[in-house]
Amino acid sequence: MSLTIVGSVAFDAIETPYGKTGKIIGGAGTYTALSSSYFVDNPQLISIIGYDFPEEYLSMLHKHGISTEGIERVADKKTFFWSGKYHEDMNIRDTLATELNVLGDFDPKVPESYQNTDYLMLGNLLPSVQRNVIERLHKRPKLIVMDTMNFWMNTMLDELLKTIRMVDVLVINDEEAKQLSGHKSLVKAASRVLKMGPKHLIIKKGEHGAMLFSGGKIFYTPALPIEEVYDPTGAGDTFAGGFIGWLAKTDDLSFENMKRAVVFGSAMASFTVEKFGTEMLQYLDKKEIRKRVVQFSELVTFEMPK
Amino acid sequence: MSLTIVGSVAFDAIETPYGKTGKIIGGAGTYTALSSSYFVDNPQLISIIGYDFPEEYLSMLHKHGISTEGIERVADKKTFFWSGKYHEDMNIRDTLATELNVLGDFDPKVPESYQNTDYLMLGNLLPSVQRNVIERLHKRPKLIVMDTMNFWMNTMLDELLKTIRMVDVLVINDEEAKQLSGHKSLVKAASRVLKMGPKHLIIKKGEHGAMLFSGGKIFYTPALPIEEVYDPTGAGDTFAGGFIGWLAKTDDLSFENMKRAVVFGSAMASFTVEKFGTEMLQYLDKKEIRKRVVQFSELVTFEMPK
Repeated sequence: MSLTIVGSVAFDAIETPYGKTGKIIGGAGTYTALSSSYFVDNPQLISIIGYDFPEEYLSMLHKHGISTEGIERVADKKTFFWSGKYHEDMNIRDTLATELNVLGDFDPKVPESYQNTDYLMLGNLLPSVQRNVIERLHKRPKLIVMDTMNFWMNTMLDELLKTIRMVDVLVINDEEAKQLSGHKSLVKAASRVLKMGPKHLIIKKGEHGAMLFSGGKIFYTPALPIEEVYDPTGAGDTFAGGFIGWLAKTDDLSFENMKRAVVFGSAMASFTVEKFGTEMLQYLDKKEIRKRVVQFSELVTFEMPK
Repeated sequence: MSLTIVGSVAFDAIETPYGKTGKIIGGAGTYTALSSSYFVDNPQLISIIGYDFPEEYLSMLHKHGISTEGIERVADKKTFFWSGKYHEDMNIRDTLATELNVLGDFDPKVPESYQNTDYLMLGNLLPSVQRNVIERLHKRPKLIVMDTMNFWMNTMLDELLKTIRMVDVLVINDEEAKQLSGHKSLVKAASRVLKMGPKHLIIKKGEHGAMLFSGGKIFYTPALPIEEVYDPTGAGDTFAGGFIGWLAKTDDLSFENMKRAVVFGSAMASFTVEKFGTEMLQYLDKKEIRKRVVQFSELVTFEMPK
């Protein structure tokens, strides 16, 4: 099935206790598209870049079969830039710089060749921008997955709720689920959020894994215990790419298959954090990915006693 | 197999966002023994109480088949009392009162009828007191499980390490594992702790579940998603009782069976937090417990794709 991804393509500069990068390729759209490319032949990316974005990064995306026709290049502006520093406890990070640049007036255009997309991933962006993409598609995709963040809950809740109503799967983290619902119990938070529109809810819990809530059922996958997390940047976006990539590949929206999609997403994220930026995500193969999914299964499986 | 449990039997007064108790029965020994009583016919408790401890509480323990021969009653002192208040975020609690009373000079005596115990659970106590129990047994038990806390790491690390070297299974939480090992990665922390003596390590992660590390293998069970946690008091001790109870019942120390023990422990803990104090733990039946273990299995199980 065809898959379209909307999200930032950016420069990142990252510092963690393990080291420091220069300006490298980043952005939700980049991580999500790369991750999905291990499942779908030709993920279609919608994004915006500036004059300073190097051709070699676009070539790298092409090598992964990613269509960049939907990436607009602005001739007189710079690419979105984010810089951050992670603490010893990598759940905490300081943003050192956010230069919106081209992203400030991102008005996504849907190329004709992307129309009729079956699966749509809305990376974290202004809720109205996410909505514009849905409205600019001639045909509603079979499945729309949406990522968002607490910033929009604080600054434009009504706009956000309007977009949430239009999607099938919402992906947020545990704190965001609590904030959006006003409930501190995740189970209650999930039921409340599911009343806001989406049929399925994924709650990301970082190093503690991810949960899928759907039709009164719950699935939980822990994160894979990893010796050292080098750089958590992009883990959530990588998760989203693996999740929707698996669904687009299999075209099966049963709860059973959604569980697998959550595990594939988690497996992809477990690779991303092992090196800086997209370094791991650029050089995986399908065998390694499958092997890691088996590890997820072994990690949690026990035999019921007689 | 026979099971002996060493731990406090106490009065608790608990306040959570859901309510407030008077002085009720509490203590690690109480929770652990009650929990284990659903697996083992006659758990043997070693503890100490004061003149003010009511007979009806002892009767309640007897009703669960718990032997109280090893509970010493001090005629002129009061029972250990703890009072605490949980915040909205129940991972945070303030201790309002700690009156050691009889616990201050607890020097555990092992009744003759407890000698030759096959399984031994050392609840959180002074490390030297825990060690005394091991040394007062004529025969080393088949399995010794030890709980402890960060307080002993801060105040008497050498003493603690001496006791840790003597046990088979150490049960601590994630923060304690990091502190004890000096590693912030749980995987590295676990390998380091396993070099300190124990063959198996259980890391409790509260609402995020529990992990078992043993022989280079890792097992992870999430906590059951619960609508409302009413009172987390005793959850860890309940876990320990279910864990060692299952092992003593089955007398099988394979990794496969230890995984089941972790799940039974988690299942028991999931009951405890649903009401105040030992209210849930007093009135369970084996069918309910098994049903809950099935829920744990369903929560994490996914079918590998072809």
